[in-house]
Amino acid sequence: MSLSTDSVVAIYPGSFDPLTNGHLDLIHRGRGLVGKLIVSVLNNEAKQPLFNVEERMDMLREAVAGMENVEIDTFDGLLAEYAASRGASVILRGIRAISDYEYELQMALMNRRLRPDIETMFLLAGEGNSFLSSRLVKEVARLGGNVSGLVPAAVERRLAARFPMPGPGK
Amino acid sequence: MSLSTDSVVAIYPGSFDPLTNGHLDLIHRGRGLVGKLIVSVLNNEAKQPLFNVEERMDMLREAVAGMENVEIDTFDGLLAEYAASRGASVILRGIRAISDYEYELQMALMNRRLRPDIETMFLLAGEGNSFLSSRLVKEVARLGGNVSGLVPAAVERRLAARFPMPGPGK
Amino acid sequence: MSLSTDSVVAIYPGSFDPLTNGHLDLIHRGRGLVGKLIVSVLNNEAKQPLFNVEERMDMLREAVAGMENVEIDTFDGLLAEYAASRGASVILRGIRAISDYEYELQMALMNRRLRPDIETMFLLAGEGNSFLSSRLVKEVARLGGNVSGLVPAAVERRLAARFPMPGPGK
Amino acid sequence: MSLSTDSVVAIYPGSFDPLTNGHLDLIHRGRGLVGKLIVSVLNNEAKQPLFNVEERMDMLREAVAGMENVEIDTFDGLLAEYAASRGASVILRGIRAISDYEYELQMALMNRRLRPDIETMFLLAGEGNSFLSSRLVKEVARLGGNVSGLVPAAVERRLAARFPMPGPGK
Amino acid sequence: MSLSTDSVVAIYPGSFDPLTNGHLDLIHRGRGLVGKLIVSVLNNEAKQPLFNVEERMDMLREAVAGMENVEIDTFDGLLAEYAASRGASVILRGIRAISDYEYELQMALMNRRLRPDIETMFLLAGEGNSFLSSRLVKEVARLGGNVSGLVPAAVERRLAARFPMPGPGK
Amino acid sequence: MSLSTDSVVAIYPGSFDPLTNGHLDLIHRGRGLVGKLIVSVLNNEAKQPLFNVEERMDMLREAVAGMENVEIDTFDGLLAEYAASRGASVILRGIRAISDYEYELQMALMNRRLRPDIETMFLLAGEGNSFLSSRLVKEVARLGGNVSGLVPAAVERRLAARFPMPGPGK
Repeated sequence: MSLSTDSVVAIYPGSFDPLTNGHLDLIHRGRGLVGKLIVSVLNNEAKQPLFNVEERMDMLREAVAGMENVEIDTFDGLLAEYAASRGASVILRGIRAISDYEYELQMALMNRRLRPDIETMFLLAGEGNSFLSSRLVKEVARLGGNVSGLVPAAVERRLAARFPMPGPGK
Repeated sequence: MSLSTDSVVAIYPGSFDPLTNGHLDLIHRGRGLVGKLIVSVLNNEAKQPLFNVEERMDMLREAVAGMENVEIDTFDGLLAEYAASRGASVILRGIRAISDYEYELQMALMNRRLRPDIETMFLLAGEGNSFLSSRLVKEVARLGGNVSGLVPAAVERRLAARFPMPGPGK
Repeated sequence: MSLSTDSVVAIYPGSFDPLTNGHLDLIHRGRGLVGKLIVSVLNNEAKQPLFNVEERMDMLREAVAGMENVEIDTFDGLLAEYAASRGASVILRGIRAISDYEYELQMALMNRRLRPDIETMFLLAGEGNSFLSSRLVKEVARLGGNVSGLVPAAVERRLAARFPMPGPGK
Repeated sequence: MSLSTDSVVAIYPGSFDPLTNGHLDLIHRGRGLVGKLIVSVLNNEAKQPLFNVEERMDMLREAVAGMENVEIDTFDGLLAEYAASRGASVILRGIRAISDYEYELQMALMNRRLRPDIETMFLLAGEGNSFLSSRLVKEVARLGGNVSGLVPAAVERRLAARFPMPGPGK
Repeated sequence: MSLSTDSVVAIYPGSFDPLTNGHLDLIHRGRGLVGKLIVSVLNNEAKQPLFNVEERMDMLREAVAGMENVEIDTFDGLLAEYAASRGASVILRGIRAISDYEYELQMALMNRRLRPDIETMFLLAGEGNSFLSSRLVKEVARLGGNVSGLVPAAVERRLAARFPMPGPGK
Repeated sequence: MSLSTDSVVAIYPGSFDPLTNGHLDLIHRGRGLVGKLIVSVLNNEAKQPLFNVEERMDMLREAVAGMENVEIDTFDGLLAEYAASRGASVILRGIRAISDYEYELQMALMNRRLRPDIETMFLLAGEGNSFLSSRLVKEVARLGGNVSGLVPAAVERRLAARFPMPGPGK
């Protein structure tokens, strides 16, 4: 119980479809609190994500380049089991809003029941990011809106490739 | 930014009037996540607390006896400044319910504005403690209800001294 | 456990300072669900209510006249103990809004812990009453607003006596 | 309106896909408040439930064996009409969280409009069950997690049959 | 900035699948606050609405007949861009409940970012309409329930045509 | 009902003890939506505000200097009656959070009942101001924290006069 906190490994799980600046802010802040932060992409191909796992990991790798204690990984199956298999004692989650809060509470309580030794730690979204979600970013990009400032450059580039701007003839 | 996390110092601030088992659960869980956890009693005598700061610190000291990386302290003034003065980079807070969430969000955003280098980290109350509050414990004790299981023994003893059970003649 | 439900006694506790049409709607609906409904006024004179316990009970008695299975009572001390002393197995509460919900949840969980054999049953406020509260009624009456339709006639009369309308010379 | 409450019949409607210990706790508590409790499975085959109506009813029957005033049934169509057709004057619902609350409020108000003589009565989920949902149980079981303690034995057995544990070769 | 408010044009966007009395109440109230109110139907055929855009516009036109400063339109693409293209400086939205609030907040912040010159103005649903939603109306109509009083006559007629009442042989 | 909207007069009521940049943002945005905006200070001297009504009006006057369609006023009594007496058909309110939402909803419904012809219009707080409240600003200033950026210059100056920074001898 009196852990050397340098050995604290945290998992930051998510779909990251795609990574937003809100996620990136959380990675920046979270990695200062633990020895190692593993950002792990949920393999949920059945849900027809916009980007596949490899693409999502690539965008993350590009965005966290140079952050020494951050690692990019992927997982499927039970999060609590995956966290244990990686030697993590912490699950990091961000909360933006009340609706997040309830879902996160339910997941945290279930994970505590499955693995009482793994703690879920919450950080609040920064103010500038409280309205940001991957879903909304995709919707805006799909409709031709400007997402610069909402996502890292690597993501903006890929979104532009997926959703080319309509030409003048539209 | 690439801190050695062993050096992470966290403040767990509160009134602790009195300490409940919910607070104690948070101390247990929080101290496993950081190098040092300073549990710090807010000096709010103007609000006529039931126990004075010395008493509240005594109850805390008794309850955390043997926890190596936990220290008991007191503060007044701005929390963010106090945290900085103690070399802390983390403020630890528990959330039990939606109403907590909104208040905590407001405080966390204000503290981030005052001291951008200090992070507020949230843990969720354990299920058995979600209804527990110092206010409710005091109310139950005052009305002669049984608070064992809700507070540590040191607190139960002091509450019993403050609110003696009515004799049969009542 | 296989009670004859005719013997189900429920307590509907509250300050009723004063009774509103929202409370009265709950009494009407609640008394159809149990064998006997005891509407019980919290003796909270220390909080300087607008009407004393006797006045609040009088207004209730007038409003429930003719309802056979409704009784008016008063209590202080722990609600759960009082309920048990009256042979009640149910505490009836109304919920108007989210903020009510959280407070009621906390109280229900504490009462379940103190007396696991007593159940808290919730009914939702009728639509026309969702904004009604004793506090707001008093505020409107104090400022000379019209509260007819918000409270029973017996209460309107007493509020008018407490807050006489300002004369033209004001 | 001055019903003999022994004649109070309540409907506890739901998908029960599958029954959880949270549902079972509500059945236990609810049946003590009314003369007869009809637990009724929504026939929603179009939504591709994990278990069909017959299986869901079987699991319920096994779990409530010996509870004299509990009956298992199924329905489709408008809940309020179904309740009336069964002679029920009460719809029983559990609330676990704020998001439940809003949905339940909307349904209760609509049902009151459709059938003003039918009351919706709410009980709060027990603390140990506040994170429990059929959806989450299915997810955990599908991913090979341990659901014992979350569902009755009859359900655990059927979930194990549906989601066999992966062998060592996985 | 010191606009002549007679020139204020507002957009009230929505699916209106179908129009409810709650929407109609908002149109009545909103059109009194601005110079011109454009009620605009989202072209979301991909989501398989019950009524197509033309039908939804027809029902709206019939319901707002005689309201001089109300226009019916349709749009797709980014709402903020559409509003700008129509010369609107205000987006009008109704809020019924907390869950609406969070979604509306997210959309309003995103729209402010995309078009800082366009303001989102909120009105609260009237009490009698707080439980009303197009989704619930469709569900009730589909199951043969009575929706008169929930939707305008033009909508009730069309719903009856879509969901004919089952004959006695059912 | 088909008002010339240039004639729309709105009341923005509040304690403004003191004015914050959040209030000022709302004034800027609200005055663009109506013909005339009356910012009106609640005379609540019984609640021992930090600044008296005259001071609060002075700070407002200084902050809105040059805004042609904004007027500063004060009121006591029922807001709905005051609004009617000023010829206003709109009450303007800001919402920052869920807890605001519920309180505002209750007030709006009561005001609609008292004066059905007066509409309450809501704008959401800007992101940078969502944590800002007069109460929190006073608390930070009292404890010697920096409030620049949170309040207009006129307010910052007066707060500094009220809460002089402690000298080095503290």
